[in-house]
Amino acid sequence: MEKPAEVRREILRCCDGQIKRFEDTVVTEHPVTIKINQQEFATMVCTPEYVEDMAIGFLASEGVIQRYDDIEDLWVQEKEGFVHIKTRRMNEFYQNFHSKRYITSCCGKSRQGFYFVNDAKVAKRMNDTHVTLSFDDCFRLMNLMQSSAHTFQETGGVHNAALCDKNGIILSRMDIGRHNALDKIYGYCLKNDIVLHDKIIVFSGRISSEILLKVAKIGCEVVLSKSAPTELALELAEDLGITTVGFIRSRSLNVYTHTERIDELVESKI
Amino acid sequence: MEKPAEVRREILRCCDGQIKRFEDTVVTEHPVTIKINQQEFATMVCTPEYVEDMAIGFLASEGVIQRYDDIEDLWVQEKEGFVHIKTRRMNEFYQNFHSKRYITSCCGKSRQGFYFVNDAKVAKRMNDTHVTLSFDDCFRLMNLMQSSAHTFQETGGVHNAALCDKNGIILSRMDIGRHNALDKIYGYCLKNDIVLHDKIIVFSGRISSEILLKVAKIGCEVVLSKSAPTELALELAEDLGITTVGFIRSRSLNVYTHTERIDELVESKI
Repeated sequence: MEKPAEVRREILRCCDGQIKRFEDTVVTEHPVTIKINQQEFATMVCTPEYVEDMAIGFLASEGVIQRYDDIEDLWVQEKEGFVHIKTRRMNEFYQNFHSKRYITSCCGKSRQGFYFVNDAKVAKRMNDTHVTLSFDDCFRLMNLMQSSAHTFQETGGVHNAALCDKNGIILSRMDIGRHNALDKIYGYCLKNDIVLHDKIIVFSGRISSEILLKVAKIGCEVVLSKSAPTELALELAEDLGITTVGFIRSRSLNVYTHTERIDELVESKI
Repeated sequence: MEKPAEVRREILRCCDGQIKRFEDTVVTEHPVTIKINQQEFATMVCTPEYVEDMAIGFLASEGVIQRYDDIEDLWVQEKEGFVHIKTRRMNEFYQNFHSKRYITSCCGKSRQGFYFVNDAKVAKRMNDTHVTLSFDDCFRLMNLMQSSAHTFQETGGVHNAALCDKNGIILSRMDIGRHNALDKIYGYCLKNDIVLHDKIIVFSGRISSEILLKVAKIGCEVVLSKSAPTELALELAEDLGITTVGFIRSRSLNVYTHTERIDELVESKI
Protein backbone atom coordinates (compact mmCIF):
# COMPACT_ATOMS: atom_id res chain seq x y z
CA MET A 1 0.00 0.00 0.00
CA GLU A 2 1.61 3.24 -1.16
CA LYS A 3 -0.61 5.83 0.45
CA PRO A 4 0.03 6.29 4.18
CA ALA A 5 -2.84 6.16 6.68
CA GLU A 6 -1.20 8.88 8.78
CA VAL A 7 0.92 11.93 7.97
CA ARG A 8 2.88 14.40 10.04
CA ARG A 9 1.75 18.02 9.94
CA GLU A 10 2.97 21.16 11.64
CA ILE A 11 0.29 22.76 13.79
CA LEU A 12 0.00 25.43 16.48
CA ARG A 13 -1.02 24.19 19.89
CA CYS A 14 -2.28 26.40 22.67
CA CYS A 15 -2.05 24.78 26.07
CA ASP A 16 -2.75 26.77 29.25
CA GLY A 17 -2.04 30.00 27.40
CA GLN A 18 1.31 28.83 25.99
CA ILE A 19 1.60 28.70 22.19
CA LYS A 20 3.92 26.22 20.59
CA ARG A 21 4.65 24.95 17.14
CA PHE A 22 4.16 21.23 17.15
CA GLU A 23 4.42 18.35 14.70
CA ASP A 24 1.25 16.33 15.05
CA THR A 25 0.04 13.11 13.44
CA VAL A 26 -3.11 13.47 11.33
CA VAL A 27 -5.11 10.69 9.72
CA THR A 28 -5.45 10.70 5.92
CA GLU A 29 -8.61 10.29 3.91
CA HIS A 30 -8.98 9.42 0.23
CA PRO A 31 -11.87 9.23 -2.19
CA VAL A 32 -12.37 5.81 -3.75
CA THR A 33 -14.83 5.24 -6.56
CA ILE A 34 -16.17 1.74 -7.15
CA LYS A 35 -16.98 0.98 -10.78
CA ILE A 36 -19.03 -2.11 -11.56
CA ASN A 37 -18.81 -3.36 -15.12
CA GLN A 38 -17.49 0.06 -16.13
CA GLN A 39 -20.35 1.96 -14.53
CA GLU A 40 -19.67 4.40 -11.69
CA PHE A 41 -21.41 2.81 -8.70
CA ALA A 42 -20.41 4.68 -5.54
CA THR A 43 -17.74 7.02 -4.20
CA MET A 44 -16.66 6.84 -0.61
CA VAL A 45 -13.89 8.50 1.35
CA CYS A 46 -11.78 6.10 3.33
CA THR A 47 -8.50 5.33 5.00
CA PRO A 48 -6.23 3.99 2.25
CA GLU A 49 -5.66 0.40 3.34
CA TYR A 50 -7.55 -2.82 2.55
CA VAL A 51 -9.47 -0.94 -0.13
CA GLU A 52 -10.06 -4.12 -2.12
CA ASP A 53 -11.63 -5.85 0.89
CA MET A 54 -13.73 -2.75 1.56
CA ALA A 55 -15.12 -2.80 -1.99
CA ILE A 56 -15.99 -6.51 -1.75
CA GLY A 57 -17.64 -6.05 1.64
CA PHE A 58 -19.55 -3.00 0.44
CA LEU A 59 -20.90 -4.78 -2.64
CA ALA A 60 -22.00 -7.77 -0.58
CA SER A 61 -23.63 -5.61 2.07
CA GLU A 62 -25.43 -3.57 -0.60
CA GLY A 63 -26.72 -6.84 -2.03
CA VAL A 64 -25.00 -6.41 -5.41
CA ILE A 65 -23.16 -9.71 -5.02
CA GLN A 66 -24.05 -12.65 -2.83
CA ARG A 67 -20.65 -14.32 -2.57
CA TYR A 68 -17.03 -13.65 -3.44
CA ASP A 69 -17.28 -15.96 -6.44
CA ASP A 70 -19.77 -13.54 -8.06
CA ILE A 71 -16.77 -11.33 -8.82
CA GLU A 72 -15.00 -12.32 -12.02
CA ASP A 73 -12.25 -9.72 -11.84
CA LEU A 74 -11.21 -6.90 -9.53
CA TRP A 75 -8.40 -4.40 -9.94
CA VAL A 76 -7.42 -1.34 -7.96
CA GLN A 77 -6.06 1.90 -9.45
CA GLU A 78 -4.59 2.98 -6.20
CA LYS A 79 -3.14 6.34 -7.13
CA GLU A 80 -6.32 7.47 -8.89
CA GLY A 81 -8.60 5.97 -6.26
CA PHE A 82 -10.66 3.54 -8.34
CA VAL A 83 -11.72 -0.04 -7.71
CA HIS A 84 -12.89 -1.74 -10.90
CA ILE A 85 -15.08 -4.78 -10.54
CA LYS A 86 -16.31 -7.12 -13.22
CA THR A 87 -19.12 -9.34 -12.01
CA ARG A 88 -19.74 -12.91 -13.08
CA ARG A 89 -23.32 -12.55 -11.91
CA MET A 90 -25.26 -9.84 -10.15
CA ASN A 91 -28.10 -10.24 -7.72
CA GLU A 92 -31.22 -9.74 -9.83
CA PHE A 93 -33.21 -8.55 -6.91
CA TYR A 94 -30.63 -5.88 -6.29
CA GLN A 95 -30.89 -4.49 -9.78
CA ASN A 96 -34.59 -3.88 -9.41
CA PHE A 97 -34.55 -2.35 -5.96
CA HIS A 98 -31.26 -0.51 -5.55
CA SER A 99 -31.75 2.15 -2.83
CA LYS A 100 -35.52 2.03 -3.10
CA ARG A 101 -37.21 2.99 0.13
CA TYR A 102 -38.80 0.01 1.87
CA ILE A 103 -42.21 1.02 3.13
CA THR A 104 -44.09 -2.19 3.64
CA SER A 105 -44.29 -3.68 7.10
CA CYS A 106 -41.15 -5.06 8.66
CA CYS A 107 -40.78 -8.41 10.40
CA GLY A 108 -44.53 -8.74 10.40
CA LYS A 109 -44.87 -5.47 12.31
CA SER A 110 -45.85 -2.11 11.06
CA ARG A 111 -42.80 -0.08 11.99
CA GLN A 112 -40.13 0.84 9.51
CA GLY A 113 -37.21 -1.26 10.68
CA PHE A 114 -35.61 -1.54 7.28
CA TYR A 115 -35.43 1.52 5.15
CA PHE A 116 -34.06 -0.02 1.98
CA VAL A 117 -35.47 -3.05 0.23
CA ASN A 118 -32.02 -4.57 -0.21
CA ASP A 119 -31.26 -4.26 3.49
CA ALA A 120 -34.30 -6.35 4.26
CA LYS A 121 -33.10 -9.01 1.84
CA VAL A 122 -29.41 -9.07 2.81
CA ALA A 123 -29.65 -8.88 6.63
CA LYS A 124 -29.50 -12.33 8.22
CA ARG A 125 -31.73 -13.36 11.10
CA MET A 126 -29.85 -15.07 13.93
CA ASN A 127 -32.15 -17.78 15.27
CA ASP A 128 -29.61 -19.87 17.17
CA THR A 129 -26.90 -19.28 19.74
CA HIS A 130 -23.41 -20.21 18.59
CA VAL A 131 -21.53 -18.01 21.01
CA THR A 132 -22.01 -16.94 24.62
CA LEU A 133 -19.98 -14.39 26.58
CA SER A 134 -19.39 -13.45 30.18
CA PHE A 135 -19.14 -9.83 31.33
CA ASP A 136 -15.39 -10.36 31.64
CA ASP A 137 -15.23 -11.51 28.00
CA CYS A 138 -16.92 -8.23 27.00
CA PHE A 139 -14.44 -6.10 28.97
CA ARG A 140 -11.45 -8.13 27.76
CA LEU A 141 -12.41 -8.00 24.07
CA MET A 142 -13.09 -4.25 24.26
CA ASN A 143 -9.68 -3.71 25.87
CA LEU A 144 -7.98 -5.85 23.22
CA MET A 145 -9.68 -3.91 20.43
CA GLN A 146 -8.77 -0.56 21.94
CA SER A 147 -5.15 -1.45 22.60
CA SER A 148 -4.76 -2.63 18.99
CA ALA A 149 -6.07 0.73 17.71
CA HIS A 150 -2.72 2.42 17.14
CA THR A 151 -3.87 5.00 14.60
CA PHE A 152 -6.70 6.08 16.86
CA GLN A 153 -4.26 6.52 19.72
CA GLU A 154 -2.02 8.62 17.47
CA THR A 155 -4.64 10.73 15.75
CA GLY A 156 -8.06 10.38 17.41
CA GLY A 157 -9.42 10.42 13.86
CA VAL A 158 -10.59 6.88 13.02
CA HIS A 159 -13.10 4.24 13.99
CA ASN A 160 -11.99 0.73 14.85
CA ALA A 161 -13.74 -2.57 14.38
CA ALA A 162 -12.55 -6.03 15.29
CA LEU A 163 -13.83 -9.49 14.44
CA CYS A 164 -13.34 -11.66 17.52
CA ASP A 165 -14.08 -15.00 19.02
CA LYS A 166 -13.93 -15.65 22.73
CA ASN A 167 -10.18 -16.20 22.53
CA GLY A 168 -9.42 -12.74 21.14
CA ILE A 169 -9.08 -10.70 17.96
CA ILE A 170 -9.12 -12.49 14.61
CA LEU A 171 -9.06 -9.37 12.47
CA SER A 172 -8.88 -5.67 13.27
CA ARG A 173 -9.57 -2.82 10.85
CA MET A 174 -9.81 0.95 11.09
CA ASP A 175 -11.22 3.66 8.89
CA ILE A 176 -12.27 7.27 9.08
CA GLY A 177 -15.69 5.97 7.95
CA ARG A 178 -17.62 3.88 10.45
CA HIS A 179 -19.08 1.56 7.82
CA ASN A 180 -15.84 1.19 5.91
CA ALA A 181 -14.12 -0.48 8.85
CA LEU A 182 -16.87 -3.11 8.93
CA ASP A 183 -16.89 -3.52 5.14
CA LYS A 184 -13.13 -4.20 5.27
CA ILE A 185 -13.78 -7.00 7.74
CA TYR A 186 -16.69 -8.39 5.73
CA GLY A 187 -14.75 -8.35 2.45
CA TYR A 188 -11.80 -10.17 4.00
CA CYS A 189 -14.08 -12.84 5.47
CA LEU A 190 -15.91 -13.43 2.18
CA LYS A 191 -12.60 -13.75 0.31
CA ASN A 192 -11.22 -16.16 2.87
CA ASP A 193 -14.41 -18.09 3.54
CA ILE A 194 -14.46 -17.40 7.26
CA VAL A 195 -17.44 -18.73 9.22
CA LEU A 196 -19.12 -15.70 10.81
CA HIS A 197 -22.15 -16.70 12.85
CA ASP A 198 -20.03 -17.71 15.85
CA LYS A 199 -17.98 -14.49 15.80
CA ILE A 200 -18.34 -11.20 17.63
CA ILE A 201 -18.04 -7.66 16.27
CA VAL A 202 -16.31 -5.22 18.63
CA PHE A 203 -16.78 -1.61 17.56
CA SER A 204 -15.50 1.75 18.76
CA GLY A 205 -18.46 3.84 17.62
CA ARG A 206 -22.15 4.18 18.28
CA ILE A 207 -24.53 1.38 17.26
CA SER A 208 -26.77 3.19 14.79
CA SER A 209 -29.30 1.29 12.71
CA GLU A 210 -26.86 1.34 9.81
CA ILE A 211 -24.15 -0.28 11.91
CA LEU A 212 -26.58 -2.84 13.31
CA LEU A 213 -27.73 -3.72 9.79
CA LYS A 214 -24.11 -4.08 8.73
CA VAL A 215 -23.52 -6.54 11.58
CA ALA A 216 -26.63 -8.47 10.53
CA LYS A 217 -25.45 -8.57 6.93
CA ILE A 218 -22.03 -9.82 7.98
CA GLY A 219 -23.93 -12.41 9.98
CA CYS A 220 -22.60 -12.04 13.54
CA GLU A 221 -24.75 -12.75 16.58
CA VAL A 222 -23.15 -10.28 18.98
CA VAL A 223 -22.00 -6.65 18.73
CA LEU A 224 -20.03 -4.96 21.52
CA SER A 225 -19.60 -1.18 21.55
CA LYS A 226 -17.86 1.41 23.66
CA SER A 227 -20.67 3.82 22.89
CA ALA A 228 -24.45 4.34 22.70
CA PRO A 229 -27.03 2.53 20.56
CA THR A 230 -30.08 4.10 18.95
CA GLU A 231 -33.64 2.91 19.54
CA LEU A 232 -34.06 1.84 15.89
CA ALA A 233 -30.85 -0.21 16.09
CA LEU A 234 -32.17 -1.94 19.21
CA GLU A 235 -35.54 -2.69 17.58
CA LEU A 236 -33.72 -4.21 14.60
CA ALA A 237 -31.42 -6.17 16.94
CA GLU A 238 -34.42 -7.60 18.77
CA ASP A 239 -36.06 -8.66 15.52
CA LEU A 240 -32.87 -10.05 13.99
CA GLY A 241 -31.76 -11.97 17.06
CA ILE A 242 -28.59 -9.97 17.72
CA THR A 243 -27.15 -9.39 21.20
CA THR A 244 -26.13 -5.74 21.66
CA VAL A 245 -23.87 -4.59 24.48
CA GLY A 246 -23.02 -0.89 24.74
CA PHE A 247 -21.17 1.64 26.87
CA ILE A 248 -18.46 -0.91 27.69
CA ARG A 249 -16.21 1.29 29.78
CA SER A 250 -13.95 0.42 32.67
CA ARG A 251 -16.04 -2.03 34.79
CA SER A 252 -19.49 -1.10 33.52
CA LEU A 253 -21.59 -2.11 30.51
CA ASN A 254 -25.22 -2.17 29.30
CA VAL A 255 -26.90 -5.21 27.75
CA TYR A 256 -29.78 -4.11 25.52
CA THR A 257 -31.07 -7.07 23.53
CA HIS A 258 -30.98 -10.89 23.43
CA THR A 259 -29.52 -11.35 26.88
CA GLU A 260 -29.51 -15.14 26.39
CA ARG A 261 -25.96 -14.96 25.08
CA ILE A 262 -24.56 -13.34 28.25
CA ASP A 263 -23.59 -16.04 30.77
CA GLU A 264 -24.33 -14.16 34.00
CA LEU A 265 -27.76 -13.06 32.79
CA VAL A 266 -28.73 -16.66 31.96
CA GLU A 267 -27.46 -17.86 35.34
CA SER A 268 -29.08 -15.10 37.38
CA LYS A 269 -32.34 -15.47 35.43
CA ILE A 270 -32.81 -11.69 35.64
CA MET B 1 -43.26 17.43 16.20
CA GLU B 2 -44.92 14.16 17.16
CA LYS B 3 -42.02 11.77 17.14
CA PRO B 4 -39.81 12.04 20.23
CA ALA B 5 -36.03 12.41 19.91
CA GLU B 6 -35.50 10.24 22.98
CA VAL B 7 -37.34 7.26 24.48
CA ARG B 8 -37.08 5.35 27.73
CA ARG B 9 -36.09 1.69 27.51
CA GLU B 10 -35.50 -0.99 30.09
CA ILE B 11 -31.97 -2.38 29.96
CA LEU B 12 -29.67 -4.53 32.07
CA ARG B 13 -26.64 -2.76 33.49
CA CYS B 14 -23.63 -4.54 34.90
CA CYS B 15 -21.49 -2.32 37.10
CA ASP B 16 -18.60 -3.77 39.13
CA GLY B 17 -20.15 -7.21 38.93
CA GLN B 18 -23.61 -6.06 40.12
CA ILE B 19 -26.50 -6.59 37.70
CA LYS B 20 -29.46 -4.28 37.80
CA ARG B 21 -32.52 -3.59 35.72
CA PHE B 22 -32.46 0.01 34.71
CA GLU B 23 -34.59 2.42 32.71
CA ASP B 24 -32.25 4.23 30.36
CA THR B 25 -32.77 7.00 27.81
CA VAL B 26 -32.02 6.05 24.21
CA VAL B 27 -31.95 8.35 21.20
CA THR B 28 -34.39 7.63 18.36
CA GLU B 29 -33.62 7.43 14.68
CA HIS B 30 -36.03 7.60 11.75
CA PRO B 31 -35.71 7.14 8.02
CA VAL B 32 -36.71 10.18 5.97
CA THR B 33 -37.02 10.04 2.22
CA ILE B 34 -36.76 13.26 0.23
CA LYS B 35 -38.81 13.30 -2.96
CA ILE B 36 -38.15 16.05 -5.48
CA ASN B 37 -40.92 16.67 -7.98
CA GLN B 38 -42.32 13.23 -7.13
CA GLN B 39 -39.01 11.43 -7.73
CA GLU B 40 -37.31 9.58 -4.85
CA PHE B 41 -34.09 11.54 -4.32
CA ALA B 42 -32.40 10.35 -1.13
CA THR B 43 -33.17 8.50 2.09
CA MET B 44 -31.39 9.40 5.28
CA VAL B 45 -31.83 8.31 8.88
CA CYS B 46 -32.10 11.19 11.29
CA THR B 47 -33.29 12.51 14.62
CA PRO B 48 -36.94 13.49 14.09
CA GLU B 49 -36.84 17.24 14.61
CA TYR B 50 -36.30 20.11 12.16
CA VAL B 51 -36.71 17.64 9.30
CA GLU B 52 -37.93 20.37 6.95
CA ASP B 53 -34.82 22.49 7.59
CA MET B 54 -32.65 19.41 7.11
CA ALA B 55 -34.18 18.72 3.71
CA ILE B 56 -33.67 22.33 2.60
CA GLY B 57 -30.08 22.37 3.83
CA PHE B 58 -29.36 19.02 2.21
CA LEU B 59 -30.73 20.11 -1.16
CA ALA B 60 -28.71 23.32 -1.08
CA SER B 61 -25.54 21.57 -0.05
CA GLU B 62 -26.01 18.95 -2.77
CA GLY B 63 -26.36 21.80 -5.25
CA VAL B 64 -29.93 20.91 -6.25
CA ILE B 65 -31.19 24.36 -5.28
CA GLN B 66 -29.25 27.57 -4.92
CA ARG B 67 -31.57 29.51 -2.66
CA TYR B 68 -34.70 28.97 -0.58
CA ASP B 69 -36.79 30.68 -3.22
CA ASP B 70 -36.02 27.82 -5.66
CA ILE B 71 -38.50 25.75 -3.66
CA GLU B 72 -42.09 26.29 -4.77
CA ASP B 73 -43.69 23.98 -2.24
CA LEU B 74 -42.58 21.68 0.58
CA TRP B 75 -44.67 19.37 2.74
CA VAL B 76 -43.71 16.78 5.32
CA GLN B 77 -45.48 13.46 5.85
CA GLU B 78 -44.16 13.07 9.30
CA LYS B 79 -45.56 9.72 10.28
CA GLU B 80 -44.48 8.06 7.04
CA GLY B 81 -41.13 9.84 6.94
CA PHE B 82 -41.35 11.70 3.64
CA VAL B 83 -40.42 15.25 2.67
CA HIS B 84 -41.99 16.25 -0.63
CA ILE B 85 -40.40 19.15 -2.47
CA LYS B 86 -41.61 20.86 -5.60
CA THR B 87 -38.96 23.05 -7.14
CA ARG B 88 -39.52 26.32 -8.92
CA ARG B 89 -36.15 25.90 -10.62
CA MET B 90 -33.35 23.40 -10.28
CA ASN B 91 -29.67 24.01 -10.71
CA GLU B 92 -28.92 22.89 -14.26
CA PHE B 93 -25.36 22.12 -13.45
CA TYR B 94 -26.54 19.80 -10.73
CA GLN B 95 -28.70 17.78 -13.04
CA ASN B 96 -25.78 16.96 -15.29
CA PHE B 97 -23.26 16.08 -12.63
CA HIS B 98 -25.18 14.60 -9.71
CA SER B 99 -22.70 12.46 -7.70
CA LYS B 100 -20.26 12.24 -10.57
CA ARG B 101 -16.71 11.78 -9.39
CA TYR B 102 -14.58 14.88 -9.84
CA ILE B 103 -11.22 13.83 -11.19
CA THR B 104 -9.74 16.92 -12.73
CA SER B 105 -7.26 18.97 -10.78
CA CYS B 106 -8.46 20.86 -7.73
CA CYS B 107 -7.76 24.50 -6.94
CA GLY B 108 -5.08 24.53 -9.64
CA LYS B 109 -3.30 21.67 -7.94
CA SER B 110 -3.24 18.05 -8.88
CA ARG B 111 -4.61 16.48 -5.73
CA GLN B 112 -8.18 15.34 -5.38
CA GLY B 113 -9.56 17.80 -2.92
CA PHE B 114 -13.11 17.59 -4.18
CA TYR B 115 -14.51 14.23 -4.96
CA PHE B 116 -17.84 15.26 -6.44
CA VAL B 117 -18.32 17.81 -9.19
CA ASN B 118 -21.16 19.49 -7.33
CA ASP B 119 -19.06 19.91 -4.20
CA ALA B 120 -16.55 21.88 -6.20
CA LYS B 121 -19.31 24.15 -7.47
CA VAL B 122 -21.20 24.66 -4.22
CA ALA B 123 -18.33 25.13 -1.76
CA LYS B 124 -17.57 28.80 -1.17
CA ARG B 125 -14.05 30.17 -0.95
CA MET B 126 -13.50 32.52 2.02
CA ASN B 127 -11.14 35.20 0.83
CA ASP B 128 -11.74 37.80 3.54
CA THR B 129 -11.79 37.90 7.31
CA HIS B 130 -15.12 38.87 8.84
CA VAL B 131 -14.57 37.27 12.22
CA THR B 132 -11.61 36.84 14.55
CA LEU B 133 -11.46 34.84 17.77
CA SER B 134 -9.26 34.61 20.83
CA PHE B 135 -8.34 31.29 22.43
CA ASP B 136 -10.80 32.13 25.20
CA ASP B 137 -13.57 32.63 22.62
CA CYS B 138 -12.85 29.11 21.33
CA PHE B 139 -13.04 27.56 24.80
CA ARG B 140 -16.14 29.56 25.70
CA LEU B 141 -18.07 28.69 22.53
CA MET B 142 -17.18 25.00 22.85
CA ASN B 143 -18.40 25.01 26.46
CA LEU B 144 -21.62 26.76 25.46
CA MET B 145 -22.24 24.24 22.69
CA GLN B 146 -21.59 21.28 24.97
CA SER B 147 -23.73 22.53 27.82
CA SER B 148 -26.65 23.09 25.42
CA ALA B 149 -26.38 19.47 24.21
CA HIS B 150 -28.99 17.93 26.51
CA THR B 151 -29.79 14.87 24.41
CA PHE B 152 -26.10 14.01 24.14
CA GLN B 153 -25.79 14.28 27.89
CA GLU B 154 -28.79 11.97 28.31
CA THR B 155 -27.99 9.40 25.65
CA GLY B 156 -24.44 9.78 24.32
CA GLY B 157 -25.99 9.02 20.95
CA VAL B 158 -26.03 12.24 18.91
CA HIS B 159 -23.78 14.82 17.32
CA ASN B 160 -24.22 18.49 18.07
CA ALA B 161 -23.57 21.52 15.94
CA ALA B 162 -24.03 25.18 16.77
CA LEU B 163 -23.98 28.31 14.67
CA CYS B 164 -22.32 31.04 16.73
CA ASP B 165 -20.99 34.51 16.64
CA LYS B 166 -18.52 35.83 19.18
CA ASN B 167 -21.35 36.60 21.59
CA GLY B 168 -22.62 33.05 21.79
CA ILE B 169 -24.93 30.49 20.22
CA ILE B 170 -27.40 31.65 17.57
CA LEU B 171 -28.72 28.20 16.70
CA SER B 172 -28.00 24.74 18.05
CA ARG B 173 -29.00 21.45 16.41
CA MET B 174 -28.40 17.78 17.10
CA ASP B 175 -28.75 14.63 15.07
CA ILE B 176 -27.62 11.03 15.11
CA GLY B 177 -26.09 11.82 11.69
CA ARG B 178 -23.13 14.20 11.64
CA HIS B 179 -24.14 15.89 8.40
CA ASN B 180 -27.79 16.16 9.32
CA ALA B 181 -27.04 18.46 12.26
CA LEU B 182 -25.25 20.85 9.88
CA ASP B 183 -27.95 20.55 7.21
CA LYS B 184 -30.55 21.53 9.83
CA ILE B 185 -28.56 24.68 10.55
CA TYR B 186 -28.04 25.46 6.88
CA GLY B 187 -31.72 24.99 6.00
CA TYR B 188 -32.86 27.27 8.83
CA CYS B 189 -30.40 29.98 7.75
CA LEU B 190 -31.48 29.82 4.10
CA LYS B 191 -35.14 30.05 5.08
CA ASN B 192 -34.49 32.99 7.40
CA ASP B 193 -31.93 34.74 5.25
CA ILE B 194 -29.21 34.75 7.90
CA VAL B 195 -25.83 36.18 6.89
CA LEU B 196 -23.30 33.38 7.33
CA HIS B 197 -19.80 34.47 6.41
CA ASP B 198 -19.24 36.16 9.78
CA LYS B 199 -20.48 33.16 11.77
CA ILE B 200 -18.69 30.24 13.37
CA ILE B 201 -19.59 26.54 13.29
CA VAL B 202 -18.97 24.69 16.55
CA PHE B 203 -19.10 20.93 16.14
CA SER B 204 -18.92 17.94 18.47
CA GLY B 205 -17.48 15.47 15.97
CA ARG B 206 -14.38 15.00 13.87
CA ILE B 207 -13.64 17.37 11.00
CA SER B 208 -13.68 14.98 8.05
CA SER B 209 -13.50 16.28 4.49
CA GLU B 210 -17.27 15.90 4.23
CA ILE B 211 -17.82 18.06 7.30
CA LEU B 212 -15.31 20.64 6.08
CA LEU B 213 -17.06 20.79 2.70
CA LYS B 214 -20.38 21.21 4.47
CA VAL B 215 -18.97 24.19 6.40
CA ALA B 216 -17.67 25.67 3.13
CA LYS B 217 -21.06 25.20 1.49
CA ILE B 218 -22.81 26.87 4.41
CA GLY B 219 -20.25 29.62 3.96
CA CYS B 220 -18.64 30.01 7.39
CA GLU B 221 -15.04 31.08 7.85
CA VAL B 222 -14.28 29.21 11.07
CA VAL B 223 -14.99 25.70 12.36
CA LEU B 224 -14.29 24.67 15.96
CA SER B 225 -14.28 21.01 16.97
CA LYS B 226 -13.81 18.97 20.10
CA SER B 227 -12.20 16.27 18.03
CA ALA B 228 -9.63 15.45 15.32
CA PRO B 229 -9.46 16.65 11.71
CA THR B 230 -8.34 14.59 8.73
CA GLU B 231 -5.51 15.60 6.42
CA LEU B 232 -7.86 15.96 3.43
CA ALA B 233 -10.14 18.24 5.46
CA LEU B 234 -7.14 20.41 6.35
CA GLU B 235 -5.98 20.60 2.72
CA LEU B 236 -9.46 21.70 1.70
CA ALA B 237 -9.59 24.20 4.57
CA GLU B 238 -6.29 25.70 3.44
CA ASP B 239 -7.52 26.04 -0.13
CA LEU B 240 -10.95 27.35 0.83
CA GLY B 241 -9.70 29.88 3.37
CA ILE B 242 -11.32 28.26 6.42
CA THR B 243 -9.83 28.44 9.92
CA THR B 244 -9.94 25.01 11.61
CA VAL B 245 -9.46 24.57 15.34
CA GLY B 246 -9.58 21.04 16.77
CA PHE B 247 -9.21 19.08 20.01
CA ILE B 248 -10.73 21.93 22.02
CA ARG B 249 -10.67 20.31 25.45
CA SER B 250 -10.28 21.86 28.88
CA ARG B 251 -7.51 24.49 28.40
CA SER B 252 -5.91 23.09 25.25
CA LEU B 253 -6.61 23.37 21.52
CA ASN B 254 -4.93 22.95 18.12
CA VAL B 255 -5.06 25.53 15.32
CA TYR B 256 -4.53 23.83 11.97
CA THR B 257 -5.25 26.29 9.17
CA HIS B 258 -5.69 30.02 8.49
CA THR B 259 -4.29 31.20 11.79
CA GLU B 260 -4.95 34.83 10.77
CA ARG B 261 -8.37 34.67 12.43
CA ILE B 262 -6.97 33.78 15.87
CA ASP B 263 -6.07 36.94 17.80
CA GLU B 264 -3.13 35.61 19.82
CA LEU B 265 -1.48 34.08 16.77
CA VAL B 266 -1.67 37.38 14.87
CA GLU B 267 -0.26 39.26 17.85
CA SER B 268 2.51 36.79 18.60
CA LYS B 269 3.41 36.54 14.88
CA ILE B 270 4.18 32.84 15.38
